[in-house]
Amino acid sequence: MRISELGEFGLISLVQDWTRRTGEPPAGAACQLVVDNGDDAAAATFPGGPVTELYTTDTMVDGVHFTASTTPWRDLGWKAIASNISDVAAMGGAPALALVTLGLPPHTPVADIAELYAGMTAICRQFGAHIAGGDLVSSPVAFVTVALTGVAHGALMVRAAARPGHQVAVTGPVGGSAGGLRLLLENPSAVPDNANANILITQHRRPRPHIAESKSLVAAGVPSAMDVSDGLADDLGKLCSASGVAAIIRADAVPVTPSLQSVFPDDWLDLALYGGEDYVLLFTAPPDIMATALDLLPSGAAIIGEITGGTPGQVAVLDTAGRPRPRRGSGWDHFAND
Amino acid sequence: MRISELGEFGLISLVQDWTRRTGEPPAGAACQLVVDNGDDAAAATFPGGPVTELYTTDTMVDGVHFTASTTPWRDLGWKAIASNISDVAAMGGAPALALVTLGLPPHTPVADIAELYAGMTAICRQFGAHIAGGDLVSSPVAFVTVALTGVAHGALMVRAAARPGHQVAVTGPVGGSAGGLRLLLENPSAVPDNANANILITQHRRPRPHIAESKSLVAAGVPSAMDVSDGLADDLGKLCSASGVAAIIRADAVPVTPSLQSVFPDDWLDLALYGGEDYVLLFTAPPDIMATALDLLPSGAAIIGEITGGTPGQVAVLDTAGRPRPRRGSGWDHFAND
Repeated sequence: MRISELGEFGLISLVQDWTRRTGEPPAGAACQLVVDNGDDAAAATFPGGPVTELYTTDTMVDGVHFTASTTPWRDLGWKAIASNISDVAAMGGAPALALVTLGLPPHTPVADIAELYAGMTAICRQFGAHIAGGDLVSSPVAFVTVALTGVAHGALMVRAAARPGHQVAVTGPVGGSAGGLRLLLENPSAVPDNANANILITQHRRPRPHIAESKSLVAAGVPSAMDVSDGLADDLGKLCSASGVAAIIRADAVPVTPSLQSVFPDDWLDLALYGGEDYVLLFTAPPDIMATALDLLPSGAAIIGEITGGTPGQVAVLDTAGRPRPRRGSGWDHFAND
Repeated sequence: MRISELGEFGLISLVQDWTRRTGEPPAGAACQLVVDNGDDAAAATFPGGPVTELYTTDTMVDGVHFTASTTPWRDLGWKAIASNISDVAAMGGAPALALVTLGLPPHTPVADIAELYAGMTAICRQFGAHIAGGDLVSSPVAFVTVALTGVAHGALMVRAAARPGHQVAVTGPVGGSAGGLRLLLENPSAVPDNANANILITQHRRPRPHIAESKSLVAAGVPSAMDVSDGLADDLGKLCSASGVAAIIRADAVPVTPSLQSVFPDDWLDLALYGGEDYVLLFTAPPDIMATALDLLPSGAAIIGEITGGTPGQVAVLDTAGRPRPRRGSGWDHFAND
């Protein structure tokens, strides 16, 4: 069987099974694994140590996750670090050290790599991260892999802590990045010269990890969170699977920027529900903790639904009349497009 | 300018310059960087924490660092983890948590990936490492990136601590992996069926990181070490550059396995000096510490030369008469082969 037939989630499931065969780190080992495979980041503590350390990694491949026309090198550098910082934010931590691996065709202009690092160092400075090492290798296709450590001083937020009765919320609007990408793909050479289009394109190219929001969620005692990277509905499905619960989303409660509705008057809700790379935080909490979180969050949050006791992993999107809204198209499977 | 014109070491130098622009982690940051870019691993401490943590990453790209004929999937998994454990050993630490990133063409058989993880989990079990996460992405070319953390309880060994008067030694024979690779490349379909050839091929496919040897070196107080991954002479040159010193190697003191001399009666010394992927430890120490290290090392070590005060980074290989031995061929530049 090929991995394209098995699909991304089938492969992930197998890999989790295979890697568990190494067992837990042995007793007396230097570190204690607190969160293993399957969350936004792994987490470990050191006996006698003052913090919980987080570990995450994310890769972008030319022609698969970006192209020169959708993502200039400087923005690629920003995004490659941003997606990792967002994973650390989802767990309730702050970023620390990054290892940057570049696979590069030998004909790559040096000026492009200078731009890439300009984008990476810009976001590192802004969020207090530091590039401490990496690897540079020749490759027929360009790729960027960032491994990032983070540090959490308080309780961790995890995918597996959602419970029936929790409210579900997001820390910012969704769909803008997917809208920007669609504009860039539809018209790579001549981008529409209007303010709304440029707002969406910037949301695609320069996502802001929700580190500040994450601190508020931890302070409020929010138990369960993840970042929205593969699309709101699919990511909520993953959180529900990890927690063994189901969820409903009320479509009319999903927050979007006016620019998205203006540029995509027909498709904005699909982009918001099923687009990716939003990098806002999706979280669940009982109503009292949710109320505290809304108070503490600098820009509030939108309550979009609730956790239920249905089929684990199932997410129902309800229209204004409370009826299930059919999904257009299918989700993104990284290995299905062969 | 293209990176192929600039060359690997020119690019590394630029990247180190660019990444330093992020500055040190700010005062009051969660961790303190002890060793930055340019050693086998980065190292950081946590205020009040009991250990020094190490961070390293290494990538293998299909067609660049391996092919299906030189490296079956199970061996690829072993090697991808081994090269990272070796970096941790070079610093004087033990491996802890690994993040594994795979770039895979969608037509890749699932059975191949099962083999890959079998190799990775086998070496993880043997050396006490644990795969805690990673990323699986679609890519037109297969690649494996491993990021590994390690833990050091004692002093770190670094590249920058070699001083004139130090003796230079290696913890095991060199050249065997390069010999095995040459056999595989010369005759991919029919590997010579003899014991010596098989020993070399196993050294290429199943390198053993020198973790036990590393503990002895730390216990002896060895200040400077690195692992031999790009070839003995070139790697000693890097250690000398980092320390601002020069070195001589006595060719007749370089340790090799009898199998290498038997299979390559003419080229064994060039393979030993300039071959790669040996993953033994190269280290330097004043004579008293060297004597202690030789006592403590389970299989001893070979003193191959000494550190001198010549042109920083320069390594002279001397023949039995003490004359400089000319080099055949040139070193490996990852970006020069376009």
